[in-house]
Amino acid sequence: MKIAVLFGAKSFEHEISVVSAIALKKVLNSEIVYIFCDFNRDFYLIPTDKINSKRFSSGKYKKDKKLEIKNGGFFQKSLTGYKQLDFDFVLNVIHGSDGEDGKISSILDFFNINYIGPRIEASVLSYNKLYTKMYAKEIGVKSLDYTVLNKEDSRDIKLTFPVIIKPSRLGSSIGISIVKSKGEFDYALDVAYEFDNQVLIEPFIQGIKEYNLAGCYADNEFKFSIVEEPQKEEFLDFDKKYLDFSRTKRVNEAELDASMVEKLQDAFKKIYGNIFKGALIRCDFFVHENEVYINEINPVPGSMANYLFSDFEDTLLKLSASLPKQQKIICDYKYINSIQAAKGK
Amino acid sequence: MKIAVLFGAKSFEHEISVVSAIALKKVLNSEIVYIFCDFNRDFYLIPTDKINSKRFSSGKYKKDKKLEIKNGGFFQKSLTGYKQLDFDFVLNVIHGSDGEDGKISSILDFFNINYIGPRIEASVLSYNKLYTKMYAKEIGVKSLDYTVLNKEDSRDIKLTFPVIIKPSRLGSSIGISIVKSKGEFDYALDVAYEFDNQVLIEPFIQGIKEYNLAGCYADNEFKFSIVEEPQKEEFLDFDKKYLDFSRTKRVNEAELDASMVEKLQDAFKKIYGNIFKGALIRCDFFVHENEVYINEINPVPGSMANYLFSDFEDTLLKLSASLPKQQKIICDYKYINSIQAAKGK
Repeated sequence: MKIAVLFGAKSFEHEISVVSAIALKKVLNSEIVYIFCDFNRDFYLIPTDKINSKRFSSGKYKKDKKLEIKNGGFFQKSLTGYKQLDFDFVLNVIHGSDGEDGKISSILDFFNINYIGPRIEASVLSYNKLYTKMYAKEIGVKSLDYTVLNKEDSRDIKLTFPVIIKPSRLGSSIGISIVKSKGEFDYALDVAYEFDNQVLIEPFIQGIKEYNLAGCYADNEFKFSIVEEPQKEEFLDFDKKYLDFSRTKRVNEAELDASMVEKLQDAFKKIYGNIFKGALIRCDFFVHENEVYINEINPVPGSMANYLFSDFEDTLLKLSASLPKQQKIICDYKYINSIQAAKGK
Repeated sequence: MKIAVLFGAKSFEHEISVVSAIALKKVLNSEIVYIFCDFNRDFYLIPTDKINSKRFSSGKYKKDKKLEIKNGGFFQKSLTGYKQLDFDFVLNVIHGSDGEDGKISSILDFFNINYIGPRIEASVLSYNKLYTKMYAKEIGVKSLDYTVLNKEDSRDIKLTFPVIIKPSRLGSSIGISIVKSKGEFDYALDVAYEFDNQVLIEPFIQGIKEYNLAGCYADNEFKFSIVEEPQKEEFLDFDKKYLDFSRTKRVNEAELDASMVEKLQDAFKKIYGNIFKGALIRCDFFVHENEVYINEINPVPGSMANYLFSDFEDTLLKLSASLPKQQKIICDYKYINSIQAAKGK
């Protein structure tokens, strides 16, 4: 199998996508074709044997072969025209905007390119934390209470501190603050509004348990990772999460009784539903007083959460054989023809 | 102003998009550049003076100039390379999938092309009727009660007939049936599942009033159309709606008292919010016992609902001057550089 790892793009998480993509080289035995989308959204073919983070930070990648995305795939200009890049499927490893907000899925769908990654609806429902909550409510999965605040709204609202403030639309802890008192509220809001014009405010529950579970639907069944209890110091900030994205070593399983693991897997199944088919996702849950709450859905998790799976590559390849098909649509110009016939033309 | 009307694409509503696009020629004085996306998703530049529906149904458009979409715009191959097509903004007139499901918005956003039309989130929230209901609930706009049914679910559910069955993800009345008794239920479900693997079942309320209101946010205010009470015979089927898409004549305003018009406009404003900025949308409301319910949001309404506006072109041009900007994101490779520095490389 030849896997095209697609990474980079115009995102606050551009750099962690670079790190994620490079981490995959260590964990995959399949042949990798690296497709880099730079910050200007131009595509480049990066030689797999030469990939390292400096190639991108130094701008050296600009000397690599440029690619164009068109109907059917990625193409390299050659003397005789365009040569199609050969691979079996794209693995979307673009974190944050472009990769997780629906843009890349749309483009790959539009141009009929086979890919592992969230489809458009899955992207929008997970990228916007408010929509994640709406969706969770609809399918019967709990999430923490929240207040929505828009940039133009009055800040004079009633809150019980401590609270956690999150931009609606960013991952990787960017722009997130824990606010312990009213005095800190304004500044934290300013920080969050730097990244989005809408924020969510949730109660910050001291000592709440956090559990991550990754998985996908492939071969007519759910394939689950182990459950991890992420290390946390209040919560991971961007620097720490960043390092997190380069993880390639297996982690220890959380110490949980079987019934709690089942509860987490049940919530995962409800969330995944038909909507997330085609993607390997990581759900970050809270557990409070024995109840499971969805915190966030990562439809393109850091380094694809490889470190949580007993056989990551096998899971990925099985998923690649279970990708959702696009809906069959026919167009026979029946209506236009019948109108023309009626007109006697 | 030069308006690029983008139409066609891979959609059950491909043909009505052709009709919508042609209708616009009659109502706009601005110069129009017609960009046709055919059923294979190849783009063509159609001469404005030669456009007619037969050009598409006969396949004659294939002799027109082919266009490629790339970073910055649409391009025509020339002897010396690529020539960029000149226009001020794209008007997205693709109905149904591709145009209203987020694909076209994603592609235009990704390639930095200025456009009137729903952005990704707006597309997903309006294209999927279940998400429209979730969204309406969140922002405090009523919608009719509903039951969600997936293809794999048991059909043995309790219902009070008559009900209306709708595929979750299609517009233009495709696949919709009114079911008067249990005996008709199975067949209607089969029809709906032809188009989507998820359906919504709503009570069918005899004599419910239907009102359409179009509008957009431009020039720092809402621009509303008149309210129309669409003609209906139980409800419009695809053939009738199809003819509806070619409308260019102003319609009569519904006879409503001012307080009801205000109620409809208030519901429109809540729905439009920040999410639909950049789009001219038509909201189809129900009114039952003096309460307003959202039925559906059309983010790319038939012939852009031109027939509802007192000055359609003026509204459109003002909207084109108020398009949302993409978020500013910087990438300075700060993290990668700091890691490299720490490594001493």
